[in-house]
Amino acid sequence: MDYDALFTEQLDALREDGNYRVFAELERRCGQFPRAACHDAANPGEVIVWCSNDYLGMGQHPSVRTAMKDAIDRTGAGAGGTRNISGTTHEHCLLEAELADLHGKDAALLFTSGYVSNWAALSTLGARLPNAVILSDALNHASMIEGIRHSRAQKLIWKHNDPEDLDRKLAALPEGSTPIVAFESVYSMDGDICPMAEIVEVAEKHGAMTYLDEVHAVGLYGARGGGISERDGLADRITLIEGTLGKAYGVVGGYITGSAPLCDFIRSFSSGFIFTTALPPAVAAGARTSIAHLKTSQIERAQQRRQVKRLRAKLDACGIPHLDNPSHIIPVMIKDPVKCRQIADILMQQFGIYVQPINYPTVPKGTERLRFTPGPLHTDADIDHLVGALNTLWQQCGIARAVA
Amino acid sequence: MDYDALFTEQLDALREDGNYRVFAELERRCGQFPRAACHDAANPGEVIVWCSNDYLGMGQHPSVRTAMKDAIDRTGAGAGGTRNISGTTHEHCLLEAELADLHGKDAALLFTSGYVSNWAALSTLGARLPNAVILSDALNHASMIEGIRHSRAQKLIWKHNDPEDLDRKLAALPEGSTPIVAFESVYSMDGDICPMAEIVEVAEKHGAMTYLDEVHAVGLYGARGGGISERDGLADRITLIEGTLGKAYGVVGGYITGSAPLCDFIRSFSSGFIFTTALPPAVAAGARTSIAHLKTSQIERAQQRRQVKRLRAKLDACGIPHLDNPSHIIPVMIKDPVKCRQIADILMQQFGIYVQPINYPTVPKGTERLRFTPGPLHTDADIDHLVGALNTLWQQCGIARAVA
Repeated sequence: MDYDALFTEQLDALREDGNYRVFAELERRCGQFPRAACHDAANPGEVIVWCSNDYLGMGQHPSVRTAMKDAIDRTGAGAGGTRNISGTTHEHCLLEAELADLHGKDAALLFTSGYVSNWAALSTLGARLPNAVILSDALNHASMIEGIRHSRAQKLIWKHNDPEDLDRKLAALPEGSTPIVAFESVYSMDGDICPMAEIVEVAEKHGAMTYLDEVHAVGLYGARGGGISERDGLADRITLIEGTLGKAYGVVGGYITGSAPLCDFIRSFSSGFIFTTALPPAVAAGARTSIAHLKTSQIERAQQRRQVKRLRAKLDACGIPHLDNPSHIIPVMIKDPVKCRQIADILMQQFGIYVQPINYPTVPKGTERLRFTPGPLHTDADIDHLVGALNTLWQQCGIARAVA
Repeated sequence: MDYDALFTEQLDALREDGNYRVFAELERRCGQFPRAACHDAANPGEVIVWCSNDYLGMGQHPSVRTAMKDAIDRTGAGAGGTRNISGTTHEHCLLEAELADLHGKDAALLFTSGYVSNWAALSTLGARLPNAVILSDALNHASMIEGIRHSRAQKLIWKHNDPEDLDRKLAALPEGSTPIVAFESVYSMDGDICPMAEIVEVAEKHGAMTYLDEVHAVGLYGARGGGISERDGLADRITLIEGTLGKAYGVVGGYITGSAPLCDFIRSFSSGFIFTTALPPAVAAGARTSIAHLKTSQIERAQQRRQVKRLRAKLDACGIPHLDNPSHIIPVMIKDPVKCRQIADILMQQFGIYVQPINYPTVPKGTERLRFTPGPLHTDADIDHLVGALNTLWQQCGIARAVA
């Protein structure tokens, strides 16, 4: 059988839809972020990265790098095994204690990625809790959707950020159900933030467990970087808080925090936790340093907010429409995959601006966008340069402007 | 609802069965591996690790560590995004080229772990290939089982390492099926090696795709470390070879290799690849250095084989029974979870020997074991010390010896 023909057929369909993805090959340069070298044959040279999830530039922070290098010299490259079979190191335990403290919880559990933490935790909870029903926000991330699907528990989708719809769905559950309300704080593609207090209230009214994904909020919100749940004083009312070490903290990995029995339960029964090599101790050391830094330092968050506000104001001044939201994410909607790719290509080739076109399946078809994530290391001049380039393109291409 | 009570109930059941897991908290010491510090309150002090999957000690190799530290200084801690959204770096591309070369394939694709590579690749193939039927060896790893389950494709289990049973099952498939034969080379818990030539022949006879997991073989077998498929000259007849960077290569991460359309297909459609932050560039740099080293150096493999042979001979001389297999893995069967944990505890407390008791769900209930993985850095004296300790325990505890 010609398997390659089967693969090619489906890839060709992607190309025809304009959804075939071309990765930009970058070389980040420590100390120069958000500048990076681009290795693409079509676009060699230096670019300014405008779409990184290293939201605060912690990926190049000297103390994070030093912690990682010291750990490499002290303990070596990898963990050498699963957490159960020789792969639990002192660095993992220290990081888990740091994470539990970050969210004011009894315990934490590390995973190899945020994706795996959601997938593994939700699939284990859904599969093992008797009569589990997972009530999932309509715009939850793929990792949560796949985890729920894998659990084979009953799934109910409630309207995005709509506590009233959640309330109705919880009220309609049969007696004896074990409801789990799964939602995010900051939704990464629209940048909107959930009405957490209302959601928690509804969940508590029905005795439901709450499962909160804070991956686009940890490090960024709350006085210690504990996310929206910290900012809004709700962390102690959430059953499980999930987060990542790969975005604002600048390294890689995922985690959950919650009660000691909850974390022990996932630790003991989750295939995606049990059967995988632990993160390198150096990754744990770097992440812990980054978390500790952002627990006290406000400089990065303050400067990020300043630059986010500045970019929004400059876009408004030019009439370049962007989704209104209260977060650090600025989506400029293009609503066509081919046009979105074209604009991104021109920005890269003519202006040295790298912003990846966001297309299906990351966002629904017809909502293709450029997603800008200004950080504390983007200068005012960088913002002027970006808005100038967009303004030029909007003039040349006749893309719709916002009504003043 | 008292969720903690639900968790505790299931944890208590684990404890009653003797299957509750206690992780040993280690601190690896670079340059001293397989020695490590133990942080457990009950067992403080130095231990010799006998159950690591850092099979060749590459996790402390100076050139691997240097490559990682250099990359941290050059490019920073993390990748800062998914592969699609700013997370593809030059280091990832170099590593993928190295991996494709390792297995003589056109292309490779990196994942955050070996678990994710199996789960993501098999779930995508099973879900998207028309009329897919996955024929899975009975002892395949959890990551493959979960990937197959997640795909919702038809699944047929063939008898472990039995090409005749595979042949019968392939022959019975209805016309128009798309069969995928999924198997491993070295099975990690029994240490047996598959009859690859016969399996490939059967698959080819029926036009089936072959999916081979070489995670416990890469770096260890074949003149360049390409695994059993290299050793047996079969790599070019396998459709997809999956491997890990977290065992013999000493770092972390997983990958697949195969034709360019195959890798592009998984890259383009796999949720577990698309929606996750890329590995840190430093991890990619370390892994690439390790692979390149083991492509030419035979010292580590030769010395490992010597020590594996030596431990087997010494165990035989004492009549301590171990599973007969042709690999580097030496399982000593205890067949009881409580006894297995007791023996491991005594080895740790009285002899400074760390070998994790292997219990359910990693192995079937009733097949609990100690699994020893001698490496090139275990000295002859370490082996004598281990066998002496086991001999003492076997005398004290009246555990069955092998019939001479």
